[in-house]
Amino acid sequence: MNAPVNLETLDVGFDVPALPGMDAADIQTPCLILDLDALERNIKKMGDYAKAHGMRHRVHGKMHKSVDVAKLQERLGGAVGVCCQKVSEAEVFARGGIKDVLVSNQVRDPAKIDRLARLPKLGARIIVCVDDVDNVADLSAAAEKHGTEIECFVEIDCGAGRCGVTSTEAVVQIAQPIDAAPGLKFTGIQAYQGAMQHLDSYEARKEKLDIAIAMVKDAVAGLEAVGLKPELVSGGGTGSYYFESNSGVFNELQCGSYAFMDADYGRILDKDGKRIDQGEWENAFFILTQVMSHAKPDKAICDAGLKAQSVDSGLPFIYGRDDVEYVKCSDEHGVIADPQGVLKVGEKLRLVPGHCDPTANVHDWYVGVRGNKVEVVWPVSARGKAY
Amino acid sequence: MNAPVNLETLDVGFDVPALPGMDAADIQTPCLILDLDALERNIKKMGDYAKAHGMRHRVHGKMHKSVDVAKLQERLGGAVGVCCQKVSEAEVFARGGIKDVLVSNQVRDPAKIDRLARLPKLGARIIVCVDDVDNVADLSAAAEKHGTEIECFVEIDCGAGRCGVTSTEAVVQIAQPIDAAPGLKFTGIQAYQGAMQHLDSYEARKEKLDIAIAMVKDAVAGLEAVGLKPELVSGGGTGSYYFESNSGVFNELQCGSYAFMDADYGRILDKDGKRIDQGEWENAFFILTQVMSHAKPDKAICDAGLKAQSVDSGLPFIYGRDDVEYVKCSDEHGVIADPQGVLKVGEKLRLVPGHCDPTANVHDWYVGVRGNKVEVVWPVSARGKAY
Repeated sequence: MNAPVNLETLDVGFDVPALPGMDAADIQTPCLILDLDALERNIKKMGDYAKAHGMRHRVHGKMHKSVDVAKLQERLGGAVGVCCQKVSEAEVFARGGIKDVLVSNQVRDPAKIDRLARLPKLGARIIVCVDDVDNVADLSAAAEKHGTEIECFVEIDCGAGRCGVTSTEAVVQIAQPIDAAPGLKFTGIQAYQGAMQHLDSYEARKEKLDIAIAMVKDAVAGLEAVGLKPELVSGGGTGSYYFESNSGVFNELQCGSYAFMDADYGRILDKDGKRIDQGEWENAFFILTQVMSHAKPDKAICDAGLKAQSVDSGLPFIYGRDDVEYVKCSDEHGVIADPQGVLKVGEKLRLVPGHCDPTANVHDWYVGVRGNKVEVVWPVSARGKAY
Repeated sequence: MNAPVNLETLDVGFDVPALPGMDAADIQTPCLILDLDALERNIKKMGDYAKAHGMRHRVHGKMHKSVDVAKLQERLGGAVGVCCQKVSEAEVFARGGIKDVLVSNQVRDPAKIDRLARLPKLGARIIVCVDDVDNVADLSAAAEKHGTEIECFVEIDCGAGRCGVTSTEAVVQIAQPIDAAPGLKFTGIQAYQGAMQHLDSYEARKEKLDIAIAMVKDAVAGLEAVGLKPELVSGGGTGSYYFESNSGVFNELQCGSYAFMDADYGRILDKDGKRIDQGEWENAFFILTQVMSHAKPDKAICDAGLKAQSVDSGLPFIYGRDDVEYVKCSDEHGVIADPQGVLKVGEKLRLVPGHCDPTANVHDWYVGVRGNKVEVVWPVSARGKAY
C-alpha cells in the first residue's frame, strides 16, 4: 500500500474523507461513495418516466438530505422541488435554493410552526401536511404573523398506519377550515402508502395501491363536491410510482430511494419478477470500507459498523462479490466471512447498505466518484436535521 | 401550548435544540437529554468502585463521543483517560485535552497511521492495539518520521470474535518486535470480551469471563517469561467490570455504557437477578420526543424515528410509563400504542433507546438537564468520526 498522495491536504482538518481530483484508491474509510454515472442514469430515467406520464416529480429529499443531489435531480430529472419530513430539513433546502418544498409531515410544536411560517420569505413555496383540524388555527396565526402563505395538503392514511385521516369526511372537514383560514391555502392531498413499498411481489404492492387509489379518488370527489378541487395529489415511492402515475388521480410523485438504491429496496421484484436493482435501478450508493484485521484465517474485520450505517432493514451486502459475506455488525466493526481467506488487510470493499436514508444520516460527506477519480465531495447538508 | 420563551434566540441558527437556562419544557424535539444528577451519580459510583479495587478506569469515549462527558468522568470518577475506536475520535479527544488516549482497535491504513503518529505532539499519551506483526513496521516508521512514541497493546480475542489473536504464542510473537521497534513501546494487553457483556445472566457472563481471564493470565505468563511484563492489562465493560477487577491480572477497566445506560444493557441481570437499570445504574440518557399526530384514537405518532436513534438492539422504551408503548420505528416517526388514548398532541416523552452508542452518534447535541432547567448544551464532539 502506498500512502495517499493528498495526505498533507487531508491533514488540515481530518474531517473530509477525500478531496476532488484525488484517486479513488486514496479515499479514507469508512465513507459514503456515490457512483456518479449510475446516479445520473437513475435520476434521468425517473425524470423521463415522470415526464412521459405527465407527472410532477417532487423528489424525496429526506432520503439523501443533500442540496447538491436535489439540484442534480432538478437539472437532470426535471424535479419540481423536494419533499422532506422536518422543518429543519426544509430550512436547509429552502436556504440552499430549492424553490418548492413540501414538509410531508405534521408540524405541531409552536416553535416549529413559527419557523415554518418564516420559510416563504426565502422565496420558496412551502407546503405542509395536516391531519387534525386543531392544527389549522396555529398554522394560520403563524402565517399571518409573518405575512406569509403556508400551503396545506390534507394527509390521508392510505395504508401506512402512521399520520393521516382515514375517511373522505375527515378530509373535507380539515380542508374547509384550511380554505377559510387567512394565510393558508388548501393545495391538495398527501397520500403516500409507505408500508407497501417494500413488499416483494409486484402484485402484492398493486393490491395495496388499488386500495389507496380508491381512497384518494373518493376523497377528491368529496372535495370537488364542496368546491375544493385539489391542485396537487401527491404520493408514490420507488416501489409504487407506476401505480400512482397510471391512477388518473395522482399528479405528483415523491420518489426517493430510486436515485441511490439499497439492499432492502433492491430485493423487491418488478412486474417480470426481477429484482429492481438488477435492471430497473442501479446501485449508486455505497459505504466504502477497508479490511483492518484478519487475525483469524476465515474472518476479515472491516471498519464499517453501526456508526457507518443503519441496520434496521438488515445487513449490507458486498457489492460485486459472492465469495465473501458481511455477516455481523457491531459498533465500529463489520465481520466478513472469508472462508477462502481471499481478503487482505487494507483491501477496500463497497457495501450496499440495508437502508439508504438512515445510513446517509450518519455521514457528513458524499464522495462522488467517476471512474477512478473523486469528482465531487458534497456535504450531507441536512444530516442530523431531525427537529 | 405556549410558544417557547427562547424562540427568537433559537431562530439564530435553528441548529441547537435548547440553550442553557431554558425551561426543560421548551426543548425542541427530538433531541438527546442527559439527566445530569443521574449521570453524575453513575460516574461517581463507577469511579469509587474502580478506586476501591485498585483499578485504573479508562472510560470508553466511543460510547458518548463527548469531550465534556469525558472530562466529567475524569473530575468526578477519577478516570485516567479514554479509549476510543477510531483515529478521528482520538484526534477529537486529544485536541480536547484528554491526556491518555487508547485507540482500542487496529490502525492499518497508511494515512491513518500517519495521523496517529502525530497525536503525541498534542501532549497526549497515545496507545494503539496490534494483532498482526505486519503492522509493527508501519507504526514504527510513522513514529520515527514524526519523532513521537506510539505505545502498543497486543490485542487478545478473548471471546468477542473480532480482532485480536487467540494464543499466547501469537501475543509474544507480536510483543517482541514491538519492543524492539524504534518509536514504539510495548505497554500491555487489550482483552475486551465484547460478546458477553449483554448476556442476561450473571453466571453466563462469569463463565465467559473465566475463560477470558485464563487466556489473559496465560498470555501475561508467556510475556513475563521473555522479559516483557505488561504495564497495563486492559478490558472490562459495564456487564463484566467486577470480574476483571477481581481477576488479579487486569489493572485497567474500559467501561462506557454505565454512565448513560440503555434499554438493551438495562435488561441484563446483576448477581441477585435484578435488572442493572433498577439499582446498579440509573437511566441518564434519553431521547426527548413529542407526539405530533394522533389521528387514530389508539395510536400516537411521535417525532423520533430511525434518524433519532439506532434500533440495532431493539426499540426504545418510554421512561416511566407503562400505559403506552413504542411499537414501531420508521425513518422519522415512532408509532406509540396508546390503547386508552391518554396522550395528547404536543406531549413530550422520554425514550430510553435500545443502544446508546450508535444513538448518540446521530445527534449533534446533548442537552443536560437538572430539575426543570437546561443547564448545559454539549456538542457530541466526535459524532460521525468513524474514520
